[in-house]
Amino acid sequence: MVQEARSAARLFEVVPDSNVTSPAGFVAGAVYAGIKTPGPGKLDLSVLWSERPCTAAGLFTTNLVRAPVVAVCEQHLRSGKARGVVVNAGCANACTGEEGRRNAETVTAWASALVGAESEAMLAASTGVIGHQLPMEKIQAGMAELRLSPTGGAEFARAIITTDSHPKTLAVRFEADGRAVTVAGAAKGAGMIHPNMATMLAFITTDAAVAAADLQAMLRRSADRSFNAITIDGDTSTNDTLLALANGATGVAITPGTPAAAAFQAGLDHVCQTLARQVARDGEGATRLMEVRVEGARTDEDAGRHARTVAGSMLVKSAVHGADPNWGRILAAMGRSGAYLEEPSVDLWVGDVQVMAGGRPLAFDEALASAHLKGENVLIRAQLNLGTGTGIAWGCDLSEEYVTFNSDYTT
Amino acid sequence: MVQEARSAARLFEVVPDSNVTSPAGFVAGAVYAGIKTPGPGKLDLSVLWSERPCTAAGLFTTNLVRAPVVAVCEQHLRSGKARGVVVNAGCANACTGEEGRRNAETVTAWASALVGAESEAMLAASTGVIGHQLPMEKIQAGMAELRLSPTGGAEFARAIITTDSHPKTLAVRFEADGRAVTVAGAAKGAGMIHPNMATMLAFITTDAAVAAADLQAMLRRSADRSFNAITIDGDTSTNDTLLALANGATGVAITPGTPAAAAFQAGLDHVCQTLARQVARDGEGATRLMEVRVEGARTDEDAGRHARTVAGSMLVKSAVHGADPNWGRILAAMGRSGAYLEEPSVDLWVGDVQVMAGGRPLAFDEALASAHLKGENVLIRAQLNLGTGTGIAWGCDLSEEYVTFNSDYTT
Repeated sequence: MVQEARSAARLFEVVPDSNVTSPAGFVAGAVYAGIKTPGPGKLDLSVLWSERPCTAAGLFTTNLVRAPVVAVCEQHLRSGKARGVVVNAGCANACTGEEGRRNAETVTAWASALVGAESEAMLAASTGVIGHQLPMEKIQAGMAELRLSPTGGAEFARAIITTDSHPKTLAVRFEADGRAVTVAGAAKGAGMIHPNMATMLAFITTDAAVAAADLQAMLRRSADRSFNAITIDGDTSTNDTLLALANGATGVAITPGTPAAAAFQAGLDHVCQTLARQVARDGEGATRLMEVRVEGARTDEDAGRHARTVAGSMLVKSAVHGADPNWGRILAAMGRSGAYLEEPSVDLWVGDVQVMAGGRPLAFDEALASAHLKGENVLIRAQLNLGTGTGIAWGCDLSEEYVTFNSDYTT
Repeated sequence: MVQEARSAARLFEVVPDSNVTSPAGFVAGAVYAGIKTPGPGKLDLSVLWSERPCTAAGLFTTNLVRAPVVAVCEQHLRSGKARGVVVNAGCANACTGEEGRRNAETVTAWASALVGAESEAMLAASTGVIGHQLPMEKIQAGMAELRLSPTGGAEFARAIITTDSHPKTLAVRFEADGRAVTVAGAAKGAGMIHPNMATMLAFITTDAAVAAADLQAMLRRSADRSFNAITIDGDTSTNDTLLALANGATGVAITPGTPAAAAFQAGLDHVCQTLARQVARDGEGATRLMEVRVEGARTDEDAGRHARTVAGSMLVKSAVHGADPNWGRILAAMGRSGAYLEEPSVDLWVGDVQVMAGGRPLAFDEALASAHLKGENVLIRAQLNLGTGTGIAWGCDLSEEYVTFNSDYTT
């Protein structure tokens, strides 16, 4: 999958200093409403809006316990149309019962009123601590101060983060019908990150015109190659949301099967994959990004499952943190993943150092393997020699800081 | 299940200062062969043996990557008979290819020769680092120094541990046919602990006579209520082994459906559950035991899955470590468990403090809940109000020490 994305990368270019208002016709703004604990430069309430009608698509958490904003989004997306999203950070508004549901609807209505639209045109997302009601007075007061502008994308990216160490945002551009089309995204991650989906909010904007069903299919495809391939701690959140808005401001229509659609999909893949890798690298307490590639599995599904299990293993994550090439843990994680393998045919590498061949341990340069594990980007690769299935996953190391951080999140 | 075990506890008594040689006719011994790194009082090679023929039963890891000792055990158990086990700690002899398989067979043969028996009478278990070959010369030299005695059970319990902070061993006794029958066990745990099964070696001895098929069924039943309900870090090991040996030295036969069989099962349950709780409490870096009880699920299977997912959640474990009553994480873990629930009907308690009723968060005494989380035994309880399914799981908190410890295990 990586190879595919890399060769496809030639279809578009990355836009420097870009964000979700880089595509034409989008505006955004953010304020500090007092939902997060105070701090210099903090923002916690934001709105992203398209000045033109949009098609819209979304993917949501698979957790049975879902924040009410998720239901709001699903309901408003039924028409395949929506023009914006209101996001609050600092309070997930999850596990908050009937009052939480009413509050989610009220905040969405306030944001719609701000832009003079029907409630159905506005989507909503929340992130933060679970089990607390939204501070409605603060949000109402904050909403009154919100101003949207075509340069508000950077503020939007800052306002949606919680424990992230930095905002995550980018855009790519490609040519179609002689015009420049932009696809942009912003994401937040940090904790409770696990496939299907990560705790994670991500928002995609584009000035191409894409039919809602096509947008949904392309978003799903990109998510499977990106946000559904990352894991921080195995805890799927209650609020995971990935939304896409396509406003057609360029007049370029994306029709499946055309070169423009291929470029659009490649660009969307790149935006999602870049954001997902940034989310994995920025996991709570993480000090490095871990990429796990599994090849030669019986199916892609098996390979993906192996890769995600390795990336999510607490023992592997701890070993990576300590730069300890204790590769037996990698094989043990694959063995319990539920996906198939045959031990006597497994080859295994830590970086470029092969540690196992045909199920036999190799004498290897431990210092070299350890040096690789100390690097910024750790690569673990397995060749199962059973078939042509390939899969990839991204995760991060597990540090003492993760524990310290998550020991006193609410108190 | 806890209630059942407690009421059944009246059927037997716990034997003070007891171990796997407490049942009549068992001998054991241990030496330091130099497999573990040296240290005062360390033991790493041990044999447990019955002076009389036994029936035998076993349960093994579900990991597709399995140490060769597991295959040795399965092969030797086909007859339903075996009289002893040789255990080495410090090297798992897993992921070691054909050479590892031959070494496992050789060590088993050496131990059989030590007691003057056929190889098939000896079982074998290994625990420690993965991917290294057994130090055969050291083991051969150590084996020559091994002396077995009827008081060797305590040494055996010490010799099988790796990163455990203390040995885990006990026995229970009950009356049947006017004679005292003893059921004993020893276990090691510490890391890579997860249901089906934990990384864990456990050995059961009894001087009752039990048909091999009955022993296997009763062992499975006890394991499901104990070793298969604990989790430390989600990493199922390559070497998990639970063995039982019944030598009939008392002349008491355990026949299914009799009061003696009920007492035997209750005693076996108690031994397994006590060892399992000790293993959970003694997880690497753990500072307290966490018990998760789920009631009112649609099925026992659903309840058990909810309980194990909560006990295994890194975020819940971190919150328990910090005594942070961040109960939203508990509900979020249940929601992603794959088992069913309906959020509007969930009641939730941290110790005796109810934090959620009918899916609504309650105002609760955070200091009281936090105080409970600081205690030695943490109880998390959920009532789903959907049916009669109950389940239980044991785990431990996640501390900075877990990470530190697992960052440099091999190096």
